[in-house]
Amino acid sequence: MNLTPVIDILTGNLAVSSFATVSGWVRSRRDSKAGISFISIYDGSCLSSLQAVVPNTLDNYKSEILKLTSGCSIKVKGEIVESPGKGQHFELSVTEFKVIGWIEKPETYPMAKTRQSMEYLREIAHLRPRSNIIGAVSRVRNALFCSVHNFFQKNGYLWVSTPLITSSDTEGTGEMFRVSTLDIQNLSFKKQGKVDYSKDFFGQETFLTVSGQLNAEAYACALSKVYTFGPTFRAENSNTSRHLSEFWMVEPEVAFAELQDIAHLAEEMLKYIFQDVLQNCSEDLKFFYQNTDKTIISRIEKILDSKFLKIDYTDAVQILQDSNKKFNFSVEWGIDLSSEHERYLTEKYFGAPLIVKNYPKNIKAFYMRLNDDNKTVASMDLLVPGIGEIIGGSQREERLDILNANMIKIGIKPEQMNWYRDLRRYGTVPHSGFGLGFERLVSYVTGVKNVRDVIPFPRTPLSAKF
Amino acid sequence: MNLTPVIDILTGNLAVSSFATVSGWVRSRRDSKAGISFISIYDGSCLSSLQAVVPNTLDNYKSEILKLTSGCSIKVKGEIVESPGKGQHFELSVTEFKVIGWIEKPETYPMAKTRQSMEYLREIAHLRPRSNIIGAVSRVRNALFCSVHNFFQKNGYLWVSTPLITSSDTEGTGEMFRVSTLDIQNLSFKKQGKVDYSKDFFGQETFLTVSGQLNAEAYACALSKVYTFGPTFRAENSNTSRHLSEFWMVEPEVAFAELQDIAHLAEEMLKYIFQDVLQNCSEDLKFFYQNTDKTIISRIEKILDSKFLKIDYTDAVQILQDSNKKFNFSVEWGIDLSSEHERYLTEKYFGAPLIVKNYPKNIKAFYMRLNDDNKTVASMDLLVPGIGEIIGGSQREERLDILNANMIKIGIKPEQMNWYRDLRRYGTVPHSGFGLGFERLVSYVTGVKNVRDVIPFPRTPLSAKF
Repeated sequence: MNLTPVIDILTGNLAVSSFATVSGWVRSRRDSKAGISFISIYDGSCLSSLQAVVPNTLDNYKSEILKLTSGCSIKVKGEIVESPGKGQHFELSVTEFKVIGWIEKPETYPMAKTRQSMEYLREIAHLRPRSNIIGAVSRVRNALFCSVHNFFQKNGYLWVSTPLITSSDTEGTGEMFRVSTLDIQNLSFKKQGKVDYSKDFFGQETFLTVSGQLNAEAYACALSKVYTFGPTFRAENSNTSRHLSEFWMVEPEVAFAELQDIAHLAEEMLKYIFQDVLQNCSEDLKFFYQNTDKTIISRIEKILDSKFLKIDYTDAVQILQDSNKKFNFSVEWGIDLSSEHERYLTEKYFGAPLIVKNYPKNIKAFYMRLNDDNKTVASMDLLVPGIGEIIGGSQREERLDILNANMIKIGIKPEQMNWYRDLRRYGTVPHSGFGLGFERLVSYVTGVKNVRDVIPFPRTPLSAKF
Repeated sequence: MNLTPVIDILTGNLAVSSFATVSGWVRSRRDSKAGISFISIYDGSCLSSLQAVVPNTLDNYKSEILKLTSGCSIKVKGEIVESPGKGQHFELSVTEFKVIGWIEKPETYPMAKTRQSMEYLREIAHLRPRSNIIGAVSRVRNALFCSVHNFFQKNGYLWVSTPLITSSDTEGTGEMFRVSTLDIQNLSFKKQGKVDYSKDFFGQETFLTVSGQLNAEAYACALSKVYTFGPTFRAENSNTSRHLSEFWMVEPEVAFAELQDIAHLAEEMLKYIFQDVLQNCSEDLKFFYQNTDKTIISRIEKILDSKFLKIDYTDAVQILQDSNKKFNFSVEWGIDLSSEHERYLTEKYFGAPLIVKNYPKNIKAFYMRLNDDNKTVASMDLLVPGIGEIIGGSQREERLDILNANMIKIGIKPEQMNWYRDLRRYGTVPHSGFGLGFERLVSYVTGVKNVRDVIPFPRTPLSAKF
C-alpha cells in the first residue's frame, strides 16, 4: 500500500520536501478565491486532520475537487511543506488527488454535521467512529487496553482466557443470559414438564458468564499470578449511564496474596495506567478537556499524586452517620453503600481515592474470606472522586469448611462445585483478586459520561443493533 | 507480599548469598540419608522447579517436611546458593519452611502422577495447569497473545472490541447459539405460533457472534487500521481436534488494503509472532520439542526463512489434478479444498507456506469482492506445513450494487443490513481483512495436537464443565 498515516506527517516524522501518499476521508473543504482548495483529511491515526492544499491546475479540480463533501474517501499524493497557516506545522501540497468513494446524497449523510448529540451518534453506531469524539474515544480505549496488559505483563502475570459459556453462576444473582441451541419452537420436555436440557448443545443448561473469577482462581492456584481481560455479561434490566449488558472486565487473581496485597495492586495498576494515558494520549485528552469535562486531566493528576487511603467499612458507616448529611438511602451498619455514600466519602470527606474494606458478610458473595470477627469479610471497594466505585475485590475463602458452609447458606449444593472446592482440598493457598469494569475506566478517563459511548457497539436492554 | 518468583532465582537475577522468600507448590520430595530433604518447588513463573535444600535441623522437619507430597502449598525462606547438583545453577538453602496447604488424601490426588494422558488432564481442567505441559501451554499462549497485540500496535492498528451478542449472522451458516432471557418454561407466542422475541431481553432474536468482521469493517471505514481479538462461537456439532465451540480469533481489518496487502500483512504477522516466541519461550519450546513434537522448532524456523508462495486457486486445482494422488475427496474446479488437498500443496508439492487466492465465488461468503472474471472472489487461505489452513481472509466487496446482488442471492434482505450497506454508500473504500484462529496458532507452535488442550476450559459439544 505504502500509505503514510496522517500522524506521521503532522508530528514531523517525515522530512519537509519529501513526497507522501495519504488515504483517508474528507473532514471539510474550503475553496479560496485564488483557485486553491483546502481539504482537511482524517484517517483515524490521530485526532487532527491533515490540510491538503489542492491547486486548480489539477485535471479533476472542477469535475471532482469542487464537489467533495464531508465523508468522501480519497487518496492524495503531494509534497510535505511547512504550513504557513495556523493550527498545524505541516501540510500537504497536492500533486495528485483521486476520489475513491463519494457520499450518496450528501445532504442526508448522517455524519455531515460536525456537532451531534451523543444520543444521536449512538443511533448510528456504525458511522460514529467517523466523528472526532468517538475517534478519540477509540484511541484512548485502545491505549488503556494496552496499558492494562503492559502493567500485568511487566509484573509477571499471565493472561488467561476464561470461558464465556458457563454452567455455573459466580455471583449467585441469577441475572444471566441463557445460551442454547434448542429448537425453541419445538421444545422437548421431561416427564415433570421441565425443559430437557440434556438435549441442548452442551447437554445441560448454560449461560453467559458474569465473571471469569472462579476459573481464574483455578489458574492462580497453579501459576500464582494471572489475570483475565475479556467480555462479561449481565442480564439486568438496568437502563443507566453506568450499565451495559455486555462489557469488558479486567480481573487479576493472585495466589499467596491477602486483601492488603491486592489493595496495593489496584493502586499500582491505576497509577500505571493513568501515567501511561497522560503520556500517550495527550492530543485526545486535550480534546476531551475542551469538549466533555474540564476536570479530567486534573483529577487523573491528583490520583497520581495521592496515596490511596484505606478505611474499614465500619468506620465509613460511622463517618456517614456523623456527617448529618441527608442521604436518599439512610445509613446503618449492614447496608451496602450506594453511590451517594461512596461519593460523599471519596469526594467530600476525604477528597482522595479511598479503599473501603471489610464489608458485612451478609451483603457479599459466598467466596469472600470470613474475617476473625465472624461478621465481616476481607473485601474491598476502591472509590475515586468523580465516579465512586471503580474496582471491587476480595480475598477468597481458602478454608474448605467455611466455604462449604457459605455455599449451603445461599442454596448452592457444594457437590455442584466440586471442581472449585478441589482448589481448597489440594494445596490450598490464600489468594485474592479484584475486578475493574473497563468501560467505567474509559468513561472516567475521557469524561464521556455514558458507558454506551465508550464501547463500539453497546448492548443494553432492548438494543442489540448492528 | 515480597515474594521472589522462582524464575528470578533460576535465571540468576538475584545475587548468590542473598535471602529470598518463595511461595509455590511441591513438585516432588527426595530425602537423603544424611538428613537433608530436596524439595522441588514450582510457582508457574517458569517451567523449571526450584530446588529447596531443607536440613533436618528445622523444627518442623519430622512433623511436616517428611510428610510433604506433590501439590502441597508452601512458603520457604532461604539463602540463594550455587547448586552443586546437575540440572540447575542455583538452589535455595532453606532456613524457614512453612506448609500452607496439605493434600487431602495424597493417594487420590489427581495430579499425583507425573505423566498423565491429555484426555485425563482434560477431565480435570481445573487442576491441569499444575502439570508441566499445561503450565507450558499457558505461558506460550500468553506470549503469543502479547505478540499478536504488539505486532498490531507497533504497526499503528487500533484494537477494537466487537460485540459478542449479535442480531446478524456473518457467515450465513445459521450454526449459532441463541442468547435469550425468555422464560423457556413459559414462552409467549405470537398469533402465527412463532415465539415472540419482542419480549426477549433485546427485543429481537439474538445470537453469539461467529466473527467480529462486519463490525470491524465499520471501524476500519473510519479509523483505517483496526483489529479485533476476542472470543467467537460456533454451534457446530464437530467433535474434532481442530474445533471448539468457543475460541479466540484475531481479525485485522484494513481500509485501502487490497488482497495482496493483507496477504503481505498475514506473512509479516506470522513471522513477527514466530520470531518472538522463539526468543521469549525457549525453555517451554524445548519442553514441547522433547515431549510432544520434534518438529516444532524446525518448522517455525523454516517459516521464518521462507518467502510465502502465492498461487491462484485455479492453479492449485490443476496441480492437485496433475498429482495423480488419490484423495478422499476428488478435485475439480469449484470445490472447496479440504485439509488433505491443502496439506499436499503446502507440505508435499511446495514444501513451504503457501497462499492460495481467488477462490470460486460460489463457495465463499457474500461479502467477498468479486473479481473481474466474474467467477472468483478476492479471497485467500494461508496454508502452512503441518496443519494446513491457518489464516483465511478476503478483500471485501466495496461496491454497493454487487453487494446487494450477493445478499439477495443467498436470501439476505439488503434492508436488514442497512448499516453494513451504509459503509458502501458513504465514502466507500477498498478494504480487506483476515481471521486467525488463535487456538490453532497455539496448537501449531506447541505441537499440542488437540485445540482442547491449548485453551484453559474448552467448550465442545456436550461439554461445558467448570
